[in-house]
Amino acid sequence: MLKIADSEYKTRMKQFQKNIKAAGLDAALVHASEGEFANVRYLSEYWPTFESAGVFVPAEGKPVLIIGPESEAYAKTRSKIRPIAMMVEYRESAEPEYPGIPVAHFKDVVAKAMPGKKLKRLGLVGYSVLPLPVYDSLCRELPGVKLVKADATLLSLRMKKSPTEIKLMKKAYEISELAIGAILNEMRPGMTELQVIGIAQREIYKHGGEYEGHALYCFCGPATKHAISRATHNTIKRSEIIQLNIGARVGGYSSSVGLPCSIGKLPARKQRLVEFGLEAHLKTMELMRGGKPAADVVREYEDFVQKRGFKKYMLYGPCHGIGMMEVERPWMESTSTYTLEENMMFQVDTFFYDRDFGLRWENGVRVTKMGVERLSQKFMHLVEL
Amino acid sequence: MLKIADSEYKTRMKQFQKNIKAAGLDAALVHASEGEFANVRYLSEYWPTFESAGVFVPAEGKPVLIIGPESEAYAKTRSKIRPIAMMVEYRESAEPEYPGIPVAHFKDVVAKAMPGKKLKRLGLVGYSVLPLPVYDSLCRELPGVKLVKADATLLSLRMKKSPTEIKLMKKAYEISELAIGAILNEMRPGMTELQVIGIAQREIYKHGGEYEGHALYCFCGPATKHAISRATHNTIKRSEIIQLNIGARVGGYSSSVGLPCSIGKLPARKQRLVEFGLEAHLKTMELMRGGKPAADVVREYEDFVQKRGFKKYMLYGPCHGIGMMEVERPWMESTSTYTLEENMMFQVDTFFYDRDFGLRWENGVRVTKMGVERLSQKFMHLVEL
Repeated sequence: MLKIADSEYKTRMKQFQKNIKAAGLDAALVHASEGEFANVRYLSEYWPTFESAGVFVPAEGKPVLIIGPESEAYAKTRSKIRPIAMMVEYRESAEPEYPGIPVAHFKDVVAKAMPGKKLKRLGLVGYSVLPLPVYDSLCRELPGVKLVKADATLLSLRMKKSPTEIKLMKKAYEISELAIGAILNEMRPGMTELQVIGIAQREIYKHGGEYEGHALYCFCGPATKHAISRATHNTIKRSEIIQLNIGARVGGYSSSVGLPCSIGKLPARKQRLVEFGLEAHLKTMELMRGGKPAADVVREYEDFVQKRGFKKYMLYGPCHGIGMMEVERPWMESTSTYTLEENMMFQVDTFFYDRDFGLRWENGVRVTKMGVERLSQKFMHLVEL
Repeated sequence: MLKIADSEYKTRMKQFQKNIKAAGLDAALVHASEGEFANVRYLSEYWPTFESAGVFVPAEGKPVLIIGPESEAYAKTRSKIRPIAMMVEYRESAEPEYPGIPVAHFKDVVAKAMPGKKLKRLGLVGYSVLPLPVYDSLCRELPGVKLVKADATLLSLRMKKSPTEIKLMKKAYEISELAIGAILNEMRPGMTELQVIGIAQREIYKHGGEYEGHALYCFCGPATKHAISRATHNTIKRSEIIQLNIGARVGGYSSSVGLPCSIGKLPARKQRLVEFGLEAHLKTMELMRGGKPAADVVREYEDFVQKRGFKKYMLYGPCHGIGMMEVERPWMESTSTYTLEENMMFQVDTFFYDRDFGLRWENGVRVTKMGVERLSQKFMHLVEL
């Protein structure tokens, strides 16, 4: 199996420690949960389940992996980081008390990671998912330490992908395409949206995926106008839009391939928006290349949609970062201040909606010097089964 | 499809508001994420995805559902609660800025939920998963309001299950059994652990599940000694323990059925621990009945294991609560202070491990006046394929 080499984990940690130092911090505490796993896994390969996890990284010294009280044997087989500390703050959300199981405290972790050094400023990475029990203990056990949101110290590493990361993502997109292929082959009127998801799950695991890359989408009819939604027990009907967004995760890297399709012909009004959506989707890719400010892509995309008369059907767009998480920084918005660089990965995410339906084309691209390399392109046409 | 009736949501909210008042709170803010969805879904049926969600519940007045900026159309079709407020604190972890999309603030939510009333003490429910951006805004926008951990105000409702909740859980266990049946039928040496998970996923969605009830377990060989772990690309081997813990979720209610099994005969040493594990599993069920203090069950269970000479193979046990989450309060520990009551649901979770392997029997039970009703019992024997 293709995987991130130990040497790559070492390089990541070294660069992260440089960034921590450059940000004027003495250390950083990185947080992850089962679903929001990326930051901790990026540094350690450890992926918590049931419990959460952290990595305490001093600007100089040895990082410590922090896990919950039940994960020691698991973490030892998986983590690239030693030592490993067990802390009750990282337990399951049901808050068991674990009488008799010894646990560590933040001051022990700090003493182990940076012996003899003074901790004054601690960066918090994964701030948007860092829960109160961890925060409370930091305040109580490390009084006087200044806590600072510090996601940028790790983000700059994760934004551009390495050759192995690119290979893992290509594999993930390949499996997503296989799953979509199976769905198009087996989907019938009367099946529930959730049964269609079951076809995708079967294929993801069969072909080497480790998990879904995101909550899988299959919606039929009016639910297609939801920007975010969940598959239900509603049944697939003829001549209605069926929205599929199917993503596999491989070795910690996510993907998604999205297309609207139908069983039987769509009415002309819906077909027209679907086809314009695809045009806008391809236009976005055409607008991207290394060295271009992200906000320019957005402005040119929105101008294109406006000129073609489809602005009122647009909610947002046109891209967001993809990597370990199917949606990760950076988003591409009119307020973005960064410039596209080679080996950044984006999910081109083209969503239009009307009063009674919507559609979303989604495919991944790698930014190159001259434009983009497509990570998926098998389903860039309207499929009417 | 069987589902929780609107009237049951109303009853829940009414009782929750009584509890908020009884706890001396003016209101409660309930938090949930995609994975830790239970508290918000229990009150509203709304299940966030990508974004997180909250419910602001005044002791007297109208609750407000709080969602992220992309979920409005979805939430309107799903939430039993109106009004719905969109707040940027509940956005995706990638922190998009959403230029041009209007959002609300906590002071707007408070004004809508309890107009003219004074908010002095606010309970936080789902404290263990409540993230810093929500907390920061509470502190900034509601200065002087005392924030109090208040999980107990909702826990007391969720602990005992209603007739519809019991039916949903029985259905979930039934699907878990079907998934295990399919695995035992199709599993072969040389398949990866993750491919076995794919069989279970296929069956869960085929038979009416909405999702996995927890991260599904299939481990072979030494990984079986991990209390918590993840399926990998390691292959299934003959005459080694294969640990299966497979759970479906139906209508928001989770389940899990767990058993050790093997392809070919197990060596006598392993067989012996597997068989004692099953004996201890059944013993736990025998020890449970309505009216009995939870800590007594634990003490008697541990005495039984000790007397039989297997204490050194025990990590913890013997039960935890199950309902919307596969692991939810209350755990059954030697420090527990509650008494078993009719219609509490427990997952009897019997885990023993040795230096090179482990095993876990898991089945659900409903507490009755006289003992327990078993929610699954199809796989309570050592399966050697």
